[in-house]
Amino acid sequence: MVEYDPIGYVRSPYETDAPYQPQPDDAAFAVELEPEYADGPDGLASFSYAYVLFDLHRVEEYDLSITPPWREDDSLGVFATRAPDRPNGIGLSVVRILDVEDGRIDISAIDAFDGTPVLDIKPYVDGLDTKDDADVGWIDLDDADDADHLELHLEGIVH
Amino acid sequence: MVEYDPIGYVRSPYETDAPYQPQPDDAAFAVELEPEYADGPDGLASFSYAYVLFDLHRVEEYDLSITPPWREDDSLGVFATRAPDRPNGIGLSVVRILDVEDGRIDISAIDAFDGTPVLDIKPYVDGLDTKDDADVGWIDLDDADDADHLELHLEGIVH
Repeated sequence: MVEYDPIGYVRSPYETDAPYQPQPDDAAFAVELEPEYADGPDGLASFSYAYVLFDLHRVEEYDLSITPPWREDDSLGVFATRAPDRPNGIGLSVVRILDVEDGRIDISAIDAFDGTPVLDIKPYVDGLDTKDDADVGWIDLDDADDADHLELHLEGIVH
Repeated sequence: MVEYDPIGYVRSPYETDAPYQPQPDDAAFAVELEPEYADGPDGLASFSYAYVLFDLHRVEEYDLSITPPWREDDSLGVFATRAPDRPNGIGLSVVRILDVEDGRIDISAIDAFDGTPVLDIKPYVDGLDTKDDADVGWIDLDDADDADHLELHLEGIVH
């Protein structure tokens, strides 16, 4: 058993529903750190992007196999997907860093409910985290009826 | 308090010391999943890269401020670094997927000890995780005496 205490919480316009409305570009999304960690992001603003690791605290169950809605004949293992219903519900998002001040990190849109516990923040480092030869694996949107819509999900773009 | 159970363990040549010797390119590194998750990576081999999230189980303390060895005048907050000594010791590595079979995922080199608990595996998805305009923030290796050596650390290359 591994135990972690949240370092802070997501601030987001999403209270109870998954995102489905356009959101303004201003600082509607943030990570608010607990007071003891207020100095923890010193220097983070020198990076364009960061990883936010968070606990998907509303997820209670998972399926080991997942069938994507646009690939009804396929069955994927949960570790081959980014589905939130996972054995350990750890969310991982790459976000743009907009501002850092007094223990609050304003970020680009993140697909997380308001109040989601944040476990860690790490800088996203060019070279270390950028992979020019990455691919999309089984996620072949060319086959999907609503490829444009799914693309927004994949890109983490609020819509 | 957030609690997770390991889904598996890292297999690595590193038993007690940090990496400092060249390692062969063959499958010396792997994630061995617990038997109940053996089918979890079905479809993962269709991706070039994956994230491995692991618990830095040997880390017991952290400093909120860190001074990089090549920038003695600077003090960075821990969340602006990838230092393993963090409030929540969650390690995050992008690894190349070499082979997936029977609940074992052979991966490229990972900077983790043998037996490190693995918390999650997620596919690294082109577009979602690749950021062409990412940078290296404060990590300005041009100032470093041993830039080539540090570059290996940043790239996660065993040396």
